[in-house]
Amino acid sequence: MSCPICLRPVGVVEVGLPRLGRVDKYDFVSVIRIFDEYVEGLGGLEEYSHAFIIWLFHETPGVRLRLRPWGREDFPEVGIFATRFTQRPNPIALSIVKIVEVDPPRLRVLGLDAWSGSPVLDIKPYDHLDVVNEFRTPDWFEEFFKETRGGLPRWLGPSR
Amino acid sequence: MSCPICLRPVGVVEVGLPRLGRVDKYDFVSVIRIFDEYVEGLGGLEEYSHAFIIWLFHETPGVRLRLRPWGREDFPEVGIFATRFTQRPNPIALSIVKIVEVDPPRLRVLGLDAWSGSPVLDIKPYDHLDVVNEFRTPDWFEEFFKETRGGLPRWLGPSR
Repeated sequence: MSCPICLRPVGVVEVGLPRLGRVDKYDFVSVIRIFDEYVEGLGGLEEYSHAFIIWLFHETPGVRLRLRPWGREDFPEVGIFATRFTQRPNPIALSIVKIVEVDPPRLRVLGLDAWSGSPVLDIKPYDHLDVVNEFRTPDWFEEFFKETRGGLPRWLGPSR
Repeated sequence: MSCPICLRPVGVVEVGLPRLGRVDKYDFVSVIRIFDEYVEGLGGLEEYSHAFIIWLFHETPGVRLRLRPWGREDFPEVGIFATRFTQRPNPIALSIVKIVEVDPPRLRVLGLDAWSGSPVLDIKPYDHLDVVNEFRTPDWFEEFFKETRGGLPRWLGPSR
């Protein structure tokens, strides 16, 4: 049977977050290796401070359409599209990273939460149209961050 | 030959931006139809005001690794990963939308720049970790918006 949508990796996470231990992704420099045939696509990316990395949860087993966030019984059951959890119909991951260095064929970034070996599908620059100034998240989301981290997350950008 | 990464659409843009005429995507309600087998994944999405839609530029011909943004001779040639242009190695599109209504199996949104018929790959909620407060874009990006729209874009969120 043919595949409805066939994509190919443009690179791979060469050094990703350790699988064990608690490492803050904003303090850890991940290394992405772009494959030779796509390296010239990196030109000019260094003019941006941040980018989206679209990558694949390639080791996630199965799909769940409904779940309780973080497995917590006190949180409501919600649909997978209302979460960023991994067991999605298409195991696509989206991370916003700070660009530390564009050093073709490599890209070093802060904020990526991929493990080593994860395929990278695309890179897009972060720009003014990506900032929503006023937005709403569910109570369970805000509660989780208040309880576990003392407040809502703030991803402060270049000065961090 | 087998496909390296095989994905499947979870839905389709049923009503997208008109191909002709200048329609402001932030004033146009697009309709996404989620396929029956994935509809329960939408539960709880209405608690968010904004979301990422990951979709496919399914009619884009070819790939360009380097280009001048908006075809302008006065702008530098840059790599495709330093732009949001369509002719990418993987024709993946990423839009941030305001959720107008979650009405399963449909989702109505503002800010999507897909045409009708575009396959949808994933939906993820927009949250606090997606906001970068300080970031940098290239001179050509800022120049384009100042010239053509009188200033840098501001995507103001729910109040718009």
